[in-house]
Amino acid sequence: MYPKSFLELIESLKYLPGIGDKTAERLAFSIFHMDEEKTSLLSESINDVKTKVKKCTVCNNLTEEDKCSICLNNNRNNEVLCIVDDPRNIIMFEKLGTYNGYYHVLDGLISPIDGITPEEIGIDKLLKRIRTSEYKEIILALRPSIEGETTSLYIKRLIEDLPIEISKIANGIPIGAEMDYIDSLTLERALNDRRSF
Amino acid sequence: MYPKSFLELIESLKYLPGIGDKTAERLAFSIFHMDEEKTSLLSESINDVKTKVKKCTVCNNLTEEDKCSICLNNNRNNEVLCIVDDPRNIIMFEKLGTYNGYYHVLDGLISPIDGITPEEIGIDKLLKRIRTSEYKEIILALRPSIEGETTSLYIKRLIEDLPIEISKIANGIPIGAEMDYIDSLTLERALNDRRSF
Repeated sequence: MYPKSFLELIESLKYLPGIGDKTAERLAFSIFHMDEEKTSLLSESINDVKTKVKKCTVCNNLTEEDKCSICLNNNRNNEVLCIVDDPRNIIMFEKLGTYNGYYHVLDGLISPIDGITPEEIGIDKLLKRIRTSEYKEIILALRPSIEGETTSLYIKRLIEDLPIEISKIANGIPIGAEMDYIDSLTLERALNDRRSF
Repeated sequence: MYPKSFLELIESLKYLPGIGDKTAERLAFSIFHMDEEKTSLLSESINDVKTKVKKCTVCNNLTEEDKCSICLNNNRNNEVLCIVDDPRNIIMFEKLGTYNGYYHVLDGLISPIDGITPEEIGIDKLLKRIRTSEYKEIILALRPSIEGETTSLYIKRLIEDLPIEISKIANGIPIGAEMDYIDSLTLERALNDRRSF
């Protein structure tokens, strides 16, 4: 019942994650009613992100240049490398303002169930980077899931013979959480990793 | 910390209703990872909707031509006109498959609080259409809100002298609803509008 180009917009919006029929319809209407200036910006920026943004050749962070702004910054601590699995996590660490080392973004996590191998997530690139640098500490900051743990273990085994300290960010009870809503795995980990106080 | 064009996409996505910082960021990443074919389609369809889709000159429904497909269809019942305040509602009625008359979409609802006057929602166009047609029944199907009621009453007063039956779709308990979650206004209306059984 909708005009062709309106239906096409609804279908295209459904490519986005978490956007179903109803939301796509609602968004399409709001785009139809939006100022042309804003819709042009939106449409343009979608194209720009695809044409201009790429992965940093060193760390896989997002960048419009060959290297990202962090890798280009020589004032950071070049003895520490923090390994994450999503460029968003770099932003999270940077917002803290307390970490001053470099980062490396994996292209996902190893997952035997989904058939994702170490090669596919760029372990080779990471290993080459570690071997050709002077890192004294590697911080593993991957997602707290089976895939994250598998990948952390895999990386640890590959580099444990090198003279580098390997650490992993702590798991435990999140600050402010309601204790009775904590799952048993987290509680067990929090108990096992307890620290003297 | 994000590249410029990536930040621009995040900002543009936030023009959409219900899209905040976090969702915009998530959508921007998914657009970055999407096939270029799909992002081109998305970007193009945003522009297409702005350039090709317009309001039907007769009923305000969406169309790419002068008149929408419903107004162009001569096989419908030209004695009934159903007044809605959103083109989406036309789709809902059409899906029922039981209504065969024509529609008229108002450009919103009268709202003294928000300063929206009858002129702004296109009452003149509706009135002209009613006066130059042969409708025997006008069905009011506006939103069940103060603004919807105000607008229904306003239209009723304007046309009650014409030899046209005016009806309004029923309010009441929705099918399948939990009775104890029904608000008192709806219950009161359901009680007042009870029908012999």
